[in-house]
Amino acid sequence: MENTLKELVKEFSQTAWNEYLPHLSIDCVVFGYNAATMKVLLVKLKDQELWSLPGGYIRKEEDIKEAANRILIDRTGAHDIYLQQFSVFADKNRSEEFFKDFEDGLWNKQRFISLGFYALADYEKVNPVIDIFSSTCEWIDINELPVMMMDHRTILDQALLKLRKELNYKPIGYNLLPDEFTMPELQRLYEIILDKKLNRGNFYRKMIGYDILDKMDEPRMEGKAHKAPNLYRFNIEKYKIALQDGLKEGW
Amino acid sequence: MENTLKELVKEFSQTAWNEYLPHLSIDCVVFGYNAATMKVLLVKLKDQELWSLPGGYIRKEEDIKEAANRILIDRTGAHDIYLQQFSVFADKNRSEEFFKDFEDGLWNKQRFISLGFYALADYEKVNPVIDIFSSTCEWIDINELPVMMMDHRTILDQALLKLRKELNYKPIGYNLLPDEFTMPELQRLYEIILDKKLNRGNFYRKMIGYDILDKMDEPRMEGKAHKAPNLYRFNIEKYKIALQDGLKEGW
Repeated sequence: MENTLKELVKEFSQTAWNEYLPHLSIDCVVFGYNAATMKVLLVKLKDQELWSLPGGYIRKEEDIKEAANRILIDRTGAHDIYLQQFSVFADKNRSEEFFKDFEDGLWNKQRFISLGFYALADYEKVNPVIDIFSSTCEWIDINELPVMMMDHRTILDQALLKLRKELNYKPIGYNLLPDEFTMPELQRLYEIILDKKLNRGNFYRKMIGYDILDKMDEPRMEGKAHKAPNLYRFNIEKYKIALQDGLKEGW
Repeated sequence: MENTLKELVKEFSQTAWNEYLPHLSIDCVVFGYNAATMKVLLVKLKDQELWSLPGGYIRKEEDIKEAANRILIDRTGAHDIYLQQFSVFADKNRSEEFFKDFEDGLWNKQRFISLGFYALADYEKVNPVIDIFSSTCEWIDINELPVMMMDHRTILDQALLKLRKELNYKPIGYNLLPDEFTMPELQRLYEIILDKKLNRGNFYRKMIGYDILDKMDEPRMEGKAHKAPNLYRFNIEKYKIALQDGLKEGW
């Protein structure tokens, strides 16, 4: 018979106090973009109804980005995801309710201040796997989010808010779109993240103003030639400069 | 004779392990704006040449914002400063060099992951005081920053970078400027934070486009009437909405 979550946590606690920094945890929000939909990588702990973000702890001698990447590999199988720390979730009682039936003194029952990380990935490149604590690991559409444990929905919402704000000063799309794409395809990515329709003319002017796109000589050949849409690709040099210094349009 | 920093840290360590969350610290970057200059609130620990940010630890039952505010009051005398958590500083060896001559096992010598907070305040409203660990607490001009201990200069630079990025989607100036101000005065605030000159016409158009200002009926009466500059004030309702939802101009 399989171990219950309580048994697994009890066993984990025996070594965790020596291996990890107490009171510090990490929760990861990995967004995946594919075929004009936005998804997020969620797991379900054993014996639990509610879903959670893939999370874990920081080894005593580990950098926090290393920790976040190790946690994602262990808990979801997602490799080479560039994660960015974006906020801290520190409410005193954020996990009290969840662990109320667990023994006192267990590692997982202490007060944790969680470092939130987020990332955008191509979800076709991730093959979700589960670890011993989980029963499920799946990509879930952000328009069909299930009820989540503890403050994980807040962490997810904050990550999405952060991503939306970043659209105002950071470029986005490289690694998410094919090498060559049309302006409507790029606009669709923005609309999905912002969850609202954008004006086509404004989007075009603003995006051209950012000066991070190269227009291809040949349009995409499909259907009637006079309707063939122009193709663009990111100018990687300009894109990288914009990532670092902010988009041209800002102050 | 006064206690040395080493003696003070040793005494502090006797109770700190029971009172605070291990491995977690807070560092505060408080910017002050006055008379068209930008300053930052710095302290100098006893027996130290280098300056530092006002920082401290989180009590076991304390929220992180409470902790940041308590630390600022205790270490600088600054009250009612709205602090915002903006990043995490977690390098494994960030304090190793500083504490190499201190005894092992001291509270202050453990690995700390520091939560960075920043704020903008009216520096005339703060009367710097020092605590028992410090020899100095002062406002320092950001163009004349001294050498700082550990990674405190990085934390300060990151806070300034964050503030600059936020200018692209958040309003700024309320509580920093007088109730009524001219467009050049508002532009000066932006230029100080961005550390660059802005085009007057562009600034005017962009700022009016944000729709957060009310123009006063009467211009400021000084010198010749035909040159009297227009006065503006923030429309508090619109300002607050923009603070929460972002500026109109964004995506």
